[in-house]
Amino acid sequence: MINQEKIEAAVKALFGGIQFTAEPSGLYDPLRYMIEIGGKRLRPRLCLTTYSLYKDEFCPEILEPAAGLEVFHSFTLIHDDIMDRSPLRRGVDTVWKKWSPDTAILSGDVMCIDSYSRVAKAPRKCLDEVLALFSKTAAQVCEGQQYDMEFEERGDVTMDEYMRMIGLKTGVLIACAAKMGALIGGATKEERESLYEYGYNLGLAFQVADDYLDVFGDEKVFGKPIGSDIVNSKKSWLTVRAFEKAEGGALSDLREAMAMGVGTPEEKEEKISAVRGLYQELGVGRDAQDSILRLNSRALEAARKVCDGERFMLLYDFAGRLIGRAK
Amino acid sequence: MINQEKIEAAVKALFGGIQFTAEPSGLYDPLRYMIEIGGKRLRPRLCLTTYSLYKDEFCPEILEPAAGLEVFHSFTLIHDDIMDRSPLRRGVDTVWKKWSPDTAILSGDVMCIDSYSRVAKAPRKCLDEVLALFSKTAAQVCEGQQYDMEFEERGDVTMDEYMRMIGLKTGVLIACAAKMGALIGGATKEERESLYEYGYNLGLAFQVADDYLDVFGDEKVFGKPIGSDIVNSKKSWLTVRAFEKAEGGALSDLREAMAMGVGTPEEKEEKISAVRGLYQELGVGRDAQDSILRLNSRALEAARKVCDGERFMLLYDFAGRLIGRAK
Repeated sequence: MINQEKIEAAVKALFGGIQFTAEPSGLYDPLRYMIEIGGKRLRPRLCLTTYSLYKDEFCPEILEPAAGLEVFHSFTLIHDDIMDRSPLRRGVDTVWKKWSPDTAILSGDVMCIDSYSRVAKAPRKCLDEVLALFSKTAAQVCEGQQYDMEFEERGDVTMDEYMRMIGLKTGVLIACAAKMGALIGGATKEERESLYEYGYNLGLAFQVADDYLDVFGDEKVFGKPIGSDIVNSKKSWLTVRAFEKAEGGALSDLREAMAMGVGTPEEKEEKISAVRGLYQELGVGRDAQDSILRLNSRALEAARKVCDGERFMLLYDFAGRLIGRAK
Repeated sequence: MINQEKIEAAVKALFGGIQFTAEPSGLYDPLRYMIEIGGKRLRPRLCLTTYSLYKDEFCPEILEPAAGLEVFHSFTLIHDDIMDRSPLRRGVDTVWKKWSPDTAILSGDVMCIDSYSRVAKAPRKCLDEVLALFSKTAAQVCEGQQYDMEFEERGDVTMDEYMRMIGLKTGVLIACAAKMGALIGGATKEERESLYEYGYNLGLAFQVADDYLDVFGDEKVFGKPIGSDIVNSKKSWLTVRAFEKAEGGALSDLREAMAMGVGTPEEKEEKISAVRGLYQELGVGRDAQDSILRLNSRALEAARKVCDGERFMLLYDFAGRLIGRAK
């Protein structure tokens, strides 16, 4: 087993070493930018964590695929930000905003390709399985983004549909990270599936927490403007839950608040405050917290099938830091 | 060896069998559309041709990667058409025009991922080499597109720079197709490199022919409006060559013609006719034809190092149909 400290050191070294200095710089600069603006490195960290359950040393055969997961995730962010017209990411300009939408398309493309170059460094003996897992996951992430965009046009999205969508958009890549580490580490088929389940539920919990923090988080810690989902009329776990619960007067109040204009900064603040107030009345913030804990329990149940003792604690701690997130 | 007839039948079967009927249809419909509107299937045909030099039967281990090359090429077309604002492709609406730029971005992404799924079906014994070749090539294609866009802003692109750009944008993927077929077929390292050289030179010849046909082709056969490079002030082999040759009065005439407005259909026709007239005076159409033949010779020289007799004739015929193209 590899301990927490070594995992952290490996994650840190991984992204210190990625350069993206190839030519033409107009193509590769945005890749370096995306990696340098940071992020939680959740997917490579999880991949290295599940690998650590089985091995005593890291080697390029796991480090490169782990980095590939982060590079792939960054690629999806670049393209999602164009489609969502998001100007800010991690407190700084998004790639399309800083350069141009054309640059964001093409630099995203080469970043997707780069992620495959890294994943393809997995050991020969399981390379075909690693790639099949990765490609299936990558396609599902695109499917999730498509549903997300389609849901924007719909007023009747159910909680089941919403959970399936975030499962595709966020859950499967985190699940893939957990399974890939196990696969390269030499886990049995049953263990891999349980770790996939663990990652999937954590991924859902992570997304529900993201939706929660967007409304109830601390802007300085969260790194994104609070209330942006409300301002942009974006479907979130809280919206879907609120419409599920609201009846009578509360329902019409909610519809009215959602339809408020956001032309001026004052109007934005008013809308955020009105919607947040209704969420509080309906108790959907508390519901979100309950949902996060329920998903965490499911993740831990799956982890429990794979290991106990010190090894289980690695997975338990990873889950704790993820669901206890404030950013 | 597998003969020409069987290669043609395999190419035909390959794209009859690709469905892209997964959900959500909003994501996958454009993939089916791109495959259905056809194309020359040049890259899979070449991949199957070089494989045929070494084997007597096709099997999924070559057919899937060959199809992957076409799927990848189609993905680059979807994204290039957004960046180039091209409304037409093969005589029909481009994906961004028919759906939307957002759909074109996301459907392109999933098509890139699909191409990897197919290439990853290569035999286990050479999967890592096939993937390294494919990823390197895929990144180079993006680099070529970036240079192409950067060249639009520059008035001083040399012929060397132009050839390097089309080498990346068009040459390397055709070269990769030739090498991949050989690699999966079991060719020696030297043979693979020669076949790469063969494909690379054919790719350059193909692009110069494309530039030539854009000005001097027959619109009904070519499938794209003739003169579109001139109307869009796009750098082409002919432009670069013309500026290389023109001096004194011819140079100022050329600059003037290139600067003509294209606000109305009449102005477009006038500009095309003026530029074409100058190209004819300068003899750059004939130069392009010479260049195509020179590149063809280089391709055949490389092919000659690999084989003779019937096997060489497969490569010779492939080259002939490619440089003799009218569309």
